[in-house]
Amino acid sequence: VTLGIGDDAAVLAPFRHSIVVTVDASVEDVHFRRRWMGWEDVGYRATVAAASDVLAMGARPTVAVAAWTIPPDLAEADVDAIARGQRAAADALGLAFVGGNLASGPCVSITTTVLGEAARPVARAGARVGDRIGIYGPLGLAALGLAALERGVPELAPDGVARFRRPPVHLGANLATAHAAIDVSDGLAQDVGHLARASGVRVVLELARLQARRVAAHVAQALAVGVDLDRLELSGGEDYALVAAFDVVPEGFDDIGFVEAGEGVELLSNGGRTGAPPGYVHR
Amino acid sequence: VTLGIGDDAAVLAPFRHSIVVTVDASVEDVHFRRRWMGWEDVGYRATVAAASDVLAMGARPTVAVAAWTIPPDLAEADVDAIARGQRAAADALGLAFVGGNLASGPCVSITTTVLGEAARPVARAGARVGDRIGIYGPLGLAALGLAALERGVPELAPDGVARFRRPPVHLGANLATAHAAIDVSDGLAQDVGHLARASGVRVVLELARLQARRVAAHVAQALAVGVDLDRLELSGGEDYALVAAFDVVPEGFDDIGFVEAGEGVELLSNGGRTGAPPGYVHR
Repeated sequence: VTLGIGDDAAVLAPFRHSIVVTVDASVEDVHFRRRWMGWEDVGYRATVAAASDVLAMGARPTVAVAAWTIPPDLAEADVDAIARGQRAAADALGLAFVGGNLASGPCVSITTTVLGEAARPVARAGARVGDRIGIYGPLGLAALGLAALERGVPELAPDGVARFRRPPVHLGANLATAHAAIDVSDGLAQDVGHLARASGVRVVLELARLQARRVAAHVAQALAVGVDLDRLELSGGEDYALVAAFDVVPEGFDDIGFVEAGEGVELLSNGGRTGAPPGYVHR
Repeated sequence: VTLGIGDDAAVLAPFRHSIVVTVDASVEDVHFRRRWMGWEDVGYRATVAAASDVLAMGARPTVAVAAWTIPPDLAEADVDAIARGQRAAADALGLAFVGGNLASGPCVSITTTVLGEAARPVARAGARVGDRIGIYGPLGLAALGLAALERGVPELAPDGVARFRRPPVHLGANLATAHAAIDVSDGLAQDVGHLARASGVRVVLELARLQARRVAAHVAQALAVGVDLDRLELSGGEDYALVAAFDVVPEGFDDIGFVEAGEGVELLSNGGRTGAPPGYVHR
């Protein structure tokens, strides 16, 4: 960063590798509700959500700019908390905020543009017949937290609620050998469907493998809230797990399925094969 | 552009020079009103406003990403018109949209991040005592148009209204010899004040020189609407004129003042020196 916040624009030294750029918005009452989390969480979550798309390209997030719309009646302390949350996530991600824009608006909206650098960017296209599908990071946990918040019982699913408020940062995921990759923002089945379509292949998810990687505590929390973890894992959004196709799934990833000739996404279970359920819809 | 819209993120080949990045939001009922312009104008204007900050760094805008929030009841044709307007401005600017994000929200909000490339970025700091101040592009004309729209008499200031709806693209401004530069988004006096503060100098604007560059038709339109062009030029926003400090003002720029030791902005007229009026406040 040659010149940061405070001028007309930020100036960055040239990147050595390809530049990866993405933008994501977090809008009040669409992506979050005030009663579900603190303002610091709002900033944190918005930042991770945007950076996730850069990580899913096998890139390292490096710099970001933020554009906020803020209602005139939001307290200054709350605005500071949003900034603190964005900074905390940026620190966790190893990226620097170099610019911003503040506008008045009818609701809180946090739009974050993230730039990253990749020696070898990984697209959604590129999965090959015979590839194994690997997943990195928790799945369905944010959806469990959201369900607990919506039902007014956050205390029954503390891990889920924590995950929903502060999604994990998957800097450790090694996509160096990936043929194709995507992050799970709208549900595993739907996002893997994007990867399948872009690659011109079919992805088969193996339910037993998904179930085998579950943590007992999360199973218990889902039971307490009264939600179906199978369904949350396939259709739940906003965990930002990374999913990729490999010859051999590398360390840190769990093998959850395979690529075959065809199209779409199928779910393989004891009962045979079924179509995968549709994804999460932001209300 | 190695990989454009449709993946998790866009991929760009490395830039040879410094990367310049900025973000700007255009929010309904804050930066524009539906009755003031068509949706294509909304998209056009949002794009030019964002790119202006890149131009003010002496950089060439190259790529952009857009994040829209759109109310569920906005017609599809209107959404298409916004996209068309953003593309038209991008074409005029020579930049490519490589990514986007669409979210539901309570009002139309267009957030545009623009990346540019600069061999020698020009900051707000750097103006020197003895420099001349040059301006590029119309001034006060967008404010005249806004005044005409607010008073419900757009037909009395057609040039102003056209400028407000579609601000000019200042690709031709040559900042190669500039010591410092800024774009006029919130009024000449206020924005030159930012340049003066960052540079640690005082800027003196010469009213006679500002008046000398006026076009007769615009004087007539201001008279018809009943607004003071002196005031619009000093305090009116959103023309995106470029202002810079030079040893000698280059071709295409008009000389409108000078830099001296001190601080702040002063206005030199027949009546002597006065403090400059405050800038434009987005309602």
